[in-house]
Amino acid sequence: MQKIINEPKAFVDEMLEGVLLAHPSALREAAHRVIVRADAPRPGKVAIVTGGGSGHLPLFMGYVGVGLADGAAVGDVFASPSSEQILEATRAVEAGAGTLYLYGNYSGDVMNFDMAAELCMAEDIVTATFLAADDVASAPKGSEHRRRGVAGIAFLYKVAGACAEGGAPLAEVKAVTEHAAAGLRSMGVALSPCTLPAAGKPTFELPDGEMEIGMGIHGEPGVRRGPLEPASKVAAQLVEAVLADLDYRGNEVAVLINGLGATPREELYIVYRSVHRALTAAGVKVARTWVGEYATSLEMAGASVSLMKVDRQLLGLLDAPCESPFIVRR
Amino acid sequence: MQKIINEPKAFVDEMLEGVLLAHPSALREAAHRVIVRADAPRPGKVAIVTGGGSGHLPLFMGYVGVGLADGAAVGDVFASPSSEQILEATRAVEAGAGTLYLYGNYSGDVMNFDMAAELCMAEDIVTATFLAADDVASAPKGSEHRRRGVAGIAFLYKVAGACAEGGAPLAEVKAVTEHAAAGLRSMGVALSPCTLPAAGKPTFELPDGEMEIGMGIHGEPGVRRGPLEPASKVAAQLVEAVLADLDYRGNEVAVLINGLGATPREELYIVYRSVHRALTAAGVKVARTWVGEYATSLEMAGASVSLMKVDRQLLGLLDAPCESPFIVRR
Repeated sequence: MQKIINEPKAFVDEMLEGVLLAHPSALREAAHRVIVRADAPRPGKVAIVTGGGSGHLPLFMGYVGVGLADGAAVGDVFASPSSEQILEATRAVEAGAGTLYLYGNYSGDVMNFDMAAELCMAEDIVTATFLAADDVASAPKGSEHRRRGVAGIAFLYKVAGACAEGGAPLAEVKAVTEHAAAGLRSMGVALSPCTLPAAGKPTFELPDGEMEIGMGIHGEPGVRRGPLEPASKVAAQLVEAVLADLDYRGNEVAVLINGLGATPREELYIVYRSVHRALTAAGVKVARTWVGEYATSLEMAGASVSLMKVDRQLLGLLDAPCESPFIVRR
Repeated sequence: MQKIINEPKAFVDEMLEGVLLAHPSALREAAHRVIVRADAPRPGKVAIVTGGGSGHLPLFMGYVGVGLADGAAVGDVFASPSSEQILEATRAVEAGAGTLYLYGNYSGDVMNFDMAAELCMAEDIVTATFLAADDVASAPKGSEHRRRGVAGIAFLYKVAGACAEGGAPLAEVKAVTEHAAAGLRSMGVALSPCTLPAAGKPTFELPDGEMEIGMGIHGEPGVRRGPLEPASKVAAQLVEAVLADLDYRGNEVAVLINGLGATPREELYIVYRSVHRALTAAGVKVARTWVGEYATSLEMAGASVSLMKVDRQLLGLLDAPCESPFIVRR
């Protein structure tokens, strides 16, 4: 296990201590493993609370910042945070205008966020919930509610966060997030496994020279395993799967090329080159492009492609400034 | 070789095509493998030109942007760009106020930048040169001129770029860069090799369970190979080596924890936690902290620590806004 860590069981808390030491003016710990904006609560602003397992930085805590989310409940590696953490996050950031729970569609997270929402109700804190479920590989068309959330959630944080920062009420922040998500789909490919610190061995086996299309960010099985193909073919398949799920023809889109952890930025741009060509050939116009690590899986090698339909409203929200220690837009 | 690429010999050009397709409003290709700010030349502003081998993103091209460098000559993987590329970059960005060549101290780069500077002289373009040589592992004290440039150059781009953006003349931009570099030292550790696309096999062998302290970003031999130790011990050794080279006691410093490619951000923060503690114990106060991938080596696993002494002037330049497709500060 080639990791620069101390005791595996201290992984999350030492990481959090490092984050807080590095970014004291941006973030604070409102309760154990509950990270919020240093300036929270922001009076009158709708709050956005997220959370999920560790091991995915910048997910989830990396999206806590100005024009993004207000707080995050930080779970163990690849494990949901507790409902108590989510409740504490909500208490620390809510400012009377209600709170949007925005997170990925995983059963443990759903159970704990729902429980937190009930606890909030008893405290007269209004919450609404939106689940990111952008991974087309994780369930077929018609079963969209069973899909997992992956890197596309970065666009949802940006859109919802800008809307909330602009002073919109909770119903509008949720509605614009739904609107963005309705046109958002992702598909990924894995080239190597990752190793959980406490387990000490890879989450799965993937022989050299092979790839797995559609694998999830926790190593959930994909839709097809086979020989590693050239980047142009891999990219074309990812785009094809997304376009087969939703009709993007004639639309403008924002594109996110996400690296899973170990894949060099150079390769992500080689993938983007082919994605751009495939989209252009399919009559889809690229309006914005993000390339980098937005949702990782420790040191897994691989990438995902997310497409989001954009209109004037969504472009405005995507282009609004934001700032967290991990994500900055001017 | 678990890479999402096409033909290895097309690696650099396809990567560049992807970068230009992704960021058309920020960057343009002034000549073959010469990337400059889209708005270059900026009349009256001192230009900053950099360059080096590919495979290190965001080095070097990722630092081309507002408040950073103006242009970069892009070499083959781990190979210097040609003097012609550097000359073309200079021609494309210089605006009558002179050009600073700011790059890493590697013999191929030095030869080609020096040759470009001579060619510039014949065209009445004034240039000055500053070589980043922050890696304390690469040559002993007293032989600082032989040291290699590593991740610490990120601070130099920020400082020099902000100074130039503020309208300072060439001599002042060079002087502030020298001033910053005089207090800048780095030391790294590698946990796994990387694989050059054209070679198809790892640059070196590093058995599981071992690490190499002081290894360079092209796999240059380090100062010590041994069993992989806990993060706190690794971090303490890196800090110790830097503090032994330069007296930082009583100073404020900016700290950069750089990931070499495959190391998760979580681990970088675990390293930072120990670096912060070691510095505090040594009487060194941390004023700014950057954590992320600033100078990579394809998919190498490992990290480096850079410390830069800061005063009021350098803090102002570090805090000034900047924006490239890879590096944004608000």
